[in-house]
Amino acid sequence: MALALALGARGLGRVWPNPAVGCVIVNGGRIVGRGWTAPGGRPHAEPLALAQAGAAARGATAYVSLEPCSHHGQTPPCAEALVAAGVARVVSALEDPDPRVAGRGHAILRGAGIAVETGVMAEAARRSHRGFLLNRTEGRPLVTLKLATSFDGRIATASGESRWITGEGARRLVHAQRARHDAVMVGGGTARADDPDLTVRGLGVAHQPVRVVLSRGLDLPREGRLAATAASVPLWLCHGPDAAPERCEHWQRLGARLIEGAIGADGQLDPAATLQALGAAGLTRVFCEGGGSLGAALLAAGLVDELVGFTAGLALGAEGRPALGALGLARLAEAPRFRLIETRAIGDDVMHRWERA
Amino acid sequence: MALALALGARGLGRVWPNPAVGCVIVNGGRIVGRGWTAPGGRPHAEPLALAQAGAAARGATAYVSLEPCSHHGQTPPCAEALVAAGVARVVSALEDPDPRVAGRGHAILRGAGIAVETGVMAEAARRSHRGFLLNRTEGRPLVTLKLATSFDGRIATASGESRWITGEGARRLVHAQRARHDAVMVGGGTARADDPDLTVRGLGVAHQPVRVVLSRGLDLPREGRLAATAASVPLWLCHGPDAAPERCEHWQRLGARLIEGAIGADGQLDPAATLQALGAAGLTRVFCEGGGSLGAALLAAGLVDELVGFTAGLALGAEGRPALGALGLARLAEAPRFRLIETRAIGDDVMHRWERA
Repeated sequence: MALALALGARGLGRVWPNPAVGCVIVNGGRIVGRGWTAPGGRPHAEPLALAQAGAAARGATAYVSLEPCSHHGQTPPCAEALVAAGVARVVSALEDPDPRVAGRGHAILRGAGIAVETGVMAEAARRSHRGFLLNRTEGRPLVTLKLATSFDGRIATASGESRWITGEGARRLVHAQRARHDAVMVGGGTARADDPDLTVRGLGVAHQPVRVVLSRGLDLPREGRLAATAASVPLWLCHGPDAAPERCEHWQRLGARLIEGAIGADGQLDPAATLQALGAAGLTRVFCEGGGSLGAALLAAGLVDELVGFTAGLALGAEGRPALGALGLARLAEAPRFRLIETRAIGDDVMHRWERA
Repeated sequence: MALALALGARGLGRVWPNPAVGCVIVNGGRIVGRGWTAPGGRPHAEPLALAQAGAAARGATAYVSLEPCSHHGQTPPCAEALVAAGVARVVSALEDPDPRVAGRGHAILRGAGIAVETGVMAEAARRSHRGFLLNRTEGRPLVTLKLATSFDGRIATASGESRWITGEGARRLVHAQRARHDAVMVGGGTARADDPDLTVRGLGVAHQPVRVVLSRGLDLPREGRLAATAASVPLWLCHGPDAAPERCEHWQRLGARLIEGAIGADGQLDPAATLQALGAAGLTRVFCEGGGSLGAALLAAGLVDELVGFTAGLALGAEGRPALGALGLARLAEAPRFRLIETRAIGDDVMHRWERA
């Protein structure tokens, strides 16, 4: 199952709106087939592993990191494929909460006389599939918030200088993390200040995550990198109902997809409604790279599932730009809390990963 | 030599104004004596190790983490003790820059026909003795600055609530770090806001570091914990020339030692002059626990040698109190930079140690 999970994780960021599943087929103590959800979401893991196993699938045990699907979508149901191949036993990590599956995959297998065991390494599977599960249960993608700061929590000098606070190793790791998410998301202020292109570079990755920018009024630089790459790499712009039609048309002509969202009490795009729209569009994992206002809005709304911090060995002082905007906490006990998953040195910086406590 | 260094480090924080030296005596491949500078600074490491070795010191090799002293102070010179014991060879890590020694210890040994090898593990020895070396060469103690913050670099909520941001493990480690320094230092604002007692607690440590508080006007709480403990644990108050004589007398009556310092251009106590005064008073290692103004003043003046950060898994937002005051940087390239020594998880917090780059 650990191998099935590791294989499945290869698909993270590349298979949305589908889950990134892994499948290992074992016959007589020997691995005869391995598969994981292919880029774009199909073929699924099970038929790929079965194809590799061929006749050796008969009487074998299949380990799958999520319940095999039971519905005829763009691929035939994997549960039926496992039955047809003559598999004797299926070990699955987790039931699929998708209402089209929800136990029916396991039921098809059991109905065909296959021994089914579920809940094996369920905790690890829940973590790996968290984005897909959140999409199916809450209608929104998982949100990972990245903060790369000086050791006093600043992301730029008072004048806005931010290149570079962290070192090359940390920046490479950020690109790897982008690639493991369906989308990279920033607020309009960051898009204006940094002119980022938000692509994955330098890792030999062909696939690019969707770029998502939240900008109520769509006042984004028309000559910037996002505009220049809008036709070649997906760019989704979330705007308010009051964005000028001329701006909407301009960005659509450039190739961007426009997503209209509701305005919250603070006059900004409502983060919960925006994530619902992104979830409905199929996204399961979103990597938010700021700025401070968007990060604070997501934290205040309880919408940050994972945090990735990079702490660099320099001080910028109180006049530097803060990593997060105001949270409006009255008491320390109200502060959003996270549990440490991992910390290690990346070059001269400290990387730390957290998940919601 | 690694053992001599480890033994020597046991004395850190307890032997000022002396260096924390370790000595290992080896005869015929067997360790026959081990010693380290005793609390209070004497006896020195070498006579303790020689006493343990007894007759086995004759013809032996002595490993010492710093050049043996050559001057008659409150103890006879260690170099002469090594000669008298009949040691055949001395391996030392570093020459002592103290003008009363400065090579004379090695010279005494060589003059007596003892083989002397120096510079062994010199880098590690320089790090271990850094406080003593800084005192002898620059006249000031080593400064370790501690920052315990939320992951967005805040040390308290807007209302000043700060108990507790980091967990129990991190707080215990802070007490252990206090014990390895000669003094714990804070600014007057922290003394007023937190009413700390700045002692080492919960570690079974009998020895207490000096408490140093910088307060230009000596406007410190008369009913607080520092006042209550001034008679039992050393309390040094650094003040400006304009502190009210009535206040000076009050604190002296309570048992505090007063150190008058110069005022800098910003109207605060000048940090460089204050550290010179603390160095002249014998301190070799000072652990600064803030607040933000004092930390920033020390960083801006280039007076922070080591940094210890604790990052907790909670967010406090831009309205929280910043870990550091303003640094007045015009450009990112001017930011004080540090090199990562170590990072690891301490309970639910991340600990990271840095030294000046």
